Amino acid sequence: MKAAYYQGNRTIRLGESVPRTPGLDEVRIHVAYCGVCGTDLHIFKGGMDKRVSIPQVIGHEMSGEIAEVGGNVRGWSVGDRVVVRPLHPCGNCPACRAGHAHICYNLKFLGIDTPGAFQGSWTVPAHTLHRLPPNLPFDRAALIEPVAVACHDVRLGEVKSGEEVVVIGGGPIGLLIALVAASIKARVLVSEVNPFRRNLAREIGLEAVNPREVDLADLIGKRTGGAGTDVVFEVSGSAAGAATMTQLVRSRGRIVIVAIFGEAPKVDLFRFFWRELRLRGARVYEAEDFDKAIALSASGALPLEHLISARQPLKDLQTVFEQIETSTDLMKVLIDTRGE
Amino acid sequence: MKAAYYQGNRTIRLGESVPRTPGLDEVRIHVAYCGVCGTDLHIFKGGMDKRVSIPQVIGHEMSGEIAEVGGNVRGWSVGDRVVVRPLHPCGNCPACRAGHAHICYNLKFLGIDTPGAFQGSWTVPAHTLHRLPPNLPFDRAALIEPVAVACHDVRLGEVKSGEEVVVIGGGPIGLLIALVAASIKARVLVSEVNPFRRNLAREIGLEAVNPREVDLADLIGKRTGGAGTDVVFEVSGSAAGAATMTQLVRSRGRIVIVAIFGEAPKVDLFRFFWRELRLRGARVYEAEDFDKAIALSASGALPLEHLISARQPLKDLQTVFEQIETSTDLMKVLIDTRGE
Repeated sequence: MKAAYYQGNRTIRLGESVPRTPGLDEVRIHVAYCGVCGTDLHIFKGGMDKRVSIPQVIGHEMSGEIAEVGGNVRGWSVGDRVVVRPLHPCGNCPACRAGHAHICYNLKFLGIDTPGAFQGSWTVPAHTLHRLPPNLPFDRAALIEPVAVACHDVRLGEVKSGEEVVVIGGGPIGLLIALVAASIKARVLVSEVNPFRRNLAREIGLEAVNPREVDLADLIGKRTGGAGTDVVFEVSGSAAGAATMTQLVRSRGRIVIVAIFGEAPKVDLFRFFWRELRLRGARVYEAEDFDKAIALSASGALPLEHLISARQPLKDLQTVFEQIETSTDLMKVLIDTRGE
Repeated sequence: MKAAYYQGNRTIRLGESVPRTPGLDEVRIHVAYCGVCGTDLHIFKGGMDKRVSIPQVIGHEMSGEIAEVGGNVRGWSVGDRVVVRPLHPCGNCPACRAGHAHICYNLKFLGIDTPGAFQGSWTVPAHTLHRLPPNLPFDRAALIEPVAVACHDVRLGEVKSGEEVVVIGGGPIGLLIALVAASIKARVLVSEVNPFRRNLAREIGLEAVNPREVDLADLIGKRTGGAGTDVVFEVSGSAAGAATMTQLVRSRGRIVIVAIFGEAPKVDLFRFFWRELRLRGARVYEAEDFDKAIALSASGALPLEHLISARQPLKDLQTVFEQIETSTDLMKVLIDTRGE
């Protein structure tokens, strides 16, 4: 079995995946697919070299099958089809003690802080496992992790049936948020500058507009009889998105910050005061979000197949990163880790 | 009876308060005291000339006694001691229909958009009245309106007994927020650069620090065992306050925007994502906040007397505005509107 090692300097080296015997509370997995996340690309581009130990196998949006089970592990067997919730909290910090272990102050993220899933054989703590239903194939199951992000965001946004929702940014996470919100019968509008992404959004049944061509605040005003939208998800991480979000929301409406802002943008705090707006950040997921993501994906309610732009073998990971970096017409690329 | 008319151009003219016979749903009040609010000073300095019809009687932090009752008004009599919740919503906009009439999209604020209380005789809609208990004298009752702001802010901040609270900005509203939070047994720290205000905070039993002399994030870290504070109230309206607030809060902690930000400051949205912070704006008050403010003030739990820096006659209002503008050692100035 093979592994793809991030070597620093925009380089992936293909090597052997050395099976690590699971510890007492661990399992070893034969990975099937691992999706390429924006964070993986960020690592490839050197943006996280201070945090990532080189050489490192990265990747975390995976699906696979249990190959070996540690001595203390109960409830899991060889051959079980699984996904991994790639969070390993310390259990002892103020966030863990407050019940927010998913944003543990000392969180280890599997595939960033420890070896990841761009390899055939992956050993992880058993507490990270979620079971796949039989009708969910491995390729679509590799999207469970980003679907869980979307489930978390929509849950924290308290989206209810019939509400108006705007998603600023129509990449993989933005579209999944839109789909999850639509699945609970919210009325969703996606704002996205990239025409490929807008068209894809429309193909999967979403409304999408180009915020450079329409006045979004004006449009939302008309859609809502002057009230403003109930919820905005800011998924673009752009100064323009941060400036627009406050203009769209009704009195006491909600803004959810999903994007990773590299710089602090200007934010209209007057508008928060004036309309008593609410804002919250949402990061990764909790166990219930993975459960929800699996149930929703298995139900067929989400057109996940349409979000998969390509399936590539592990040996092509270097090329895939280079393509994603320059391409404007890729949504989600899956890496098949099973080849030799 | 006299009235103080804002004439534009930093000028107050003393004239007659012409009693207006109340309409069917109105009452006429003999005003006793009216406090000077930051908004009044803002109007005096010309900052709201586009909104205020000149000449205009301003002022809204008042107490008084009913002098005349309109034909449809039930439950109120001549001689009743009252304060006014100076909000007149349209009843028909999206905010009103959503139950947020206090932030009505067409809100008329009494004393800004209509005549106010810097006069002996004031006619207002009966729906704005709240009854004063017999043991609450008129001078302290003139602080009910800002106390109601503080009650609203603390309620929207969901402050609970035993929680850590930081108030950034120790003017009248900041200190009242601190006092209301302390009254429900939160552990409160006030951050304030002005030494007069810090000393006053300490005199009334609050902890206060100078954020230019101590590293607030470091201090809060030590106070909370590395967790961060539960709630921050941003009452300074400064870029420094907006930059500091996100550094102080624990995982899923709360920030309440109370200040009126004249410019959009930079806000660390990454920190919102990282710690899943929450933020909400809080503006004016609802009826229940006035009820709470009256009960709390009448209970003696708030050292309101210490916040009153001076009581001045109506004829001195011009001078009072000029003093407040330049002074660093005034907290709340009350205007006695009862003189001839």
